[in-house]
Parts: sequence; C-alpha cells; structure tokens
Amino acid sequence: MAPWGKRLAGVRGVLLDISGVLYDSGAGGGTAIAGSVEAVARLKRSRLKVRFCTNESQKSRAELVGQLRRLGFDISEGEVTAPAPAACQILKERGLRPYLLIHDGVRSEFDQIDTSNPNCVVIADAGESFSYQNMNNAFQVLMELEKPVLISLGKGRYYKETSGLMLDVGPYMKALEYACGIKAEVVGKPSPEFFKSALQAIGVEAHQLLSV
Amino acid sequence: MAPWGKRLAGVRGVLLDISGVLYDSGAGGGTAIAGSVEAVARLKRSRLKVRFCTNESQKSRAELVGQLRRLGFDISEGEVTAPAPAACQILKERGLRPYLLIHDGVRSEFDQIDTSNPNCVVIADAGESFSYQNMNNAFQVLMELEKPVLISLGKGRYYKETSGLMLDVGPYMKALEYACGIKAEVVGKPSPEFFKSALQAIGVEAHQLLSV
Repeated sequence: MAPWGKRLAGVRGVLLDISGVLYDSGAGGGTAIAGSVEAVARLKRSRLKVRFCTNESQKSRAELVGQLRRLGFDISEGEVTAPAPAACQILKERGLRPYLLIHDGVRSEFDQIDTSNPNCVVIADAGESFSYQNMNNAFQVLMELEKPVLISLGKGRYYKETSGLMLDVGPYMKALEYACGIKAEVVGKPSPEFFKSALQAIGVEAHQLLSV
Repeated sequence: MAPWGKRLAGVRGVLLDISGVLYDSGAGGGTAIAGSVEAVARLKRSRLKVRFCTNESQKSRAELVGQLRRLGFDISEGEVTAPAPAACQILKERGLRPYLLIHDGVRSEFDQIDTSNPNCVVIADAGESFSYQNMNNAFQVLMELEKPVLISLGKGRYYKETSGLMLDVGPYMKALEYACGIKAEVVGKPSPEFFKSALQAIGVEAHQLLSV
C-alpha cells in the first residue's frame, strides 16, 4: 500500500460520519468523542471540502445539528447528508404518499409530504414506535398495493447506546420484507446513490474522497 | 394420478390442521367452518386414526380445545400436537432456559420450564407483546450468548382475522435472525420433526397419512 502522504495527495474532500465518529449518542444529548471537535475545526480550516454523512433517522437534521453545536462542533444543517431528506426527494419525484413508520423526532422532515391514502411505506429507526400495531399497519398498507414499495432509511442491524445494544431499522425492514415477500429500497448508507448525493453536494469525485 | 379410492386404500391416519380447517379464529372464539364439526365426528367413527396438528402459538392447548369443544367439536387436549409442548420437550432435553417472547395466552404451557438466567430465546406469535422493548430484550439475551439459540414456534408470515391480516411470528423471527446474524430453529410446521411427533402419537407411518 502507498504511504499516507502519497495516498492523501489526490484527496479533495472528506466525508465524516456523525454517530460513533463525532459523538456517541445517549441520554442528555450524548458526548463528543475525544479530539473530534478540534479535528472538524482543523478540516474546515484546511483546503479540503467537508461533508457530514449520517444514517441517523431518529432525529431531524435541525435537532441533530443543534445537539452537535451544543457539544462544540462547527456544523450547519446544509452540510449534512441524511436519509430522511433524501427519501423526501424520492417520494416527490415518484409521486409516492408514504405511511410513515418513523420516530416522532424525525417527523418534521416529512412536513411537506402528502401522507393521505398511502401508496408506499417509509420505515426508519422508529425505536419504541416499532409497536405491533404500527408494524401491522405498515404491513396492511403494503399488502393492499399491487406493487408494494417499501423504503428503508438505512438497514443497520443495531447500534450502541449507553444503556446497551438497541435494534436498528434493519431487522424491522427484514420483517416486512419477509411478511410481504418483497425487497426494500434502502435510502442511506451503504446505498451508492446516497454517497453520490453527498459527493455532489461538495463537488468532489469518488476517487478524490476520504471517508471517515 | 391414481383415482381417489385407490389413493386412499393405504391410508390409516388423518392429520387435521385446526385454524382455517376446523374453524376461523376471531372475536368471540371464532366460528366453525361449515361441515367441519360433522366431518371430525365421522372420521372418529371410522377406522382411521385422527390427530390434530396446529401451529397455534397464542393459546395453550387447554384454551384452544375448550374453544373448539364449545363450537361442537369432539376433541381433547391429548389429541393435539402443538409447537409449545414440542418446544418444552426440546428445552428440557437440552437444558435450555428461555427468555420467552410469547403471548400471555400460551404462557401456561411453559409453567414447568426454568426461565431464570436465560441461555436461549423462544419466540412465538406474541401479537401485541411484540413491543420494541420485548424484541430488544430478546435481542440482548441472544447477543450475550456465545452460541445464540433462537427457537421459533412456526415461521408463518401472517394470518387472517376477521379484522384483517395480522403479522405472524415469522417476520419477527427474521428480524432477530438478521439482527444477530443467526438462523432460528423452527418448531412446528413445516419442520419434519414436528410432523413425525404427530405421526408417532397415532402410530402411523408417513405413507399411510392423509393431511388436511
């Protein structure tokens, strides 16, 4: 492998994950990971383009950015690529009206979306909102469609909180896939389209990118 | 294909499903399917051995049989092969202490089972008990085991109630499989061992059986 200096020579942009890279989520807004506040500040002073790319789907970008700013990060909403706004764009482009199986914290991202008479399901890391009732509602919506469309904000298996491991959206996506005999469309990492939209936002090509 | 008379010539036993064959479940104990009460009575008067084989995992056999008797069926607990008692036998044989992710209606079947300090998870059609909290508890138990054991009472995708389609245990089994990267052991149909135990109970070989 080439030495770091050489490998970094062509780098023009940096894509930073948020949870587990900048901070650990948890009670009271979470805690910044040691050195990360200063690292972001230094990157922003450098010649590199910086973009934040997250699969966070329990919070709106506004809430997430507010939390990070309180922890000392130099970050604004416009610098964040997140699955909820990406999903909204897809919904609008395709005339889809979702049944939303999501956390209340991210609902504001869907304010402009028509959810009447649903013709698809959007599933995100809904936490306690993954009740049997809500899952069954989503299932029934899908089963009544001729071509069921299930959009999943990420497909993570689980994540870590200070209180222990927590089920992420992926297992619930799999549950609905199996129940309906369908395949979900994943919006968020590791979907190539999602990475591409983050790159486009900073005008950087994939081979010029460093991803953390 | 041979004519019915010839095909039935070697038949010595009949395996009858319950839900959807004898009755349709629903509010107020469900309703008998037309002709099924008399069909069971006639089979029992014939030279054929009769066994009831169900994947019902929301009710104990006692409750299920009580319900069917009230609908007019000639049936007793000892004639029913069901996944909960089959699972109990496996738990005892292998020294397994389950975390039970099950419906309260079937809990009495596990009265004799040690559930302290769980070293496996048993999942059944838990209905409203499939809360995020309960699913996460089951997940955490599995993730703390060196060799996670997940036993699923059936793997049905959904079933029909008078109020509409309802998610069965299968989707939740898939969710835990994906979350933990494991494969569940299915107790109940279509597991061959389960059919075998039903056949053994009436002393009939597979080629002598008619299954409805």
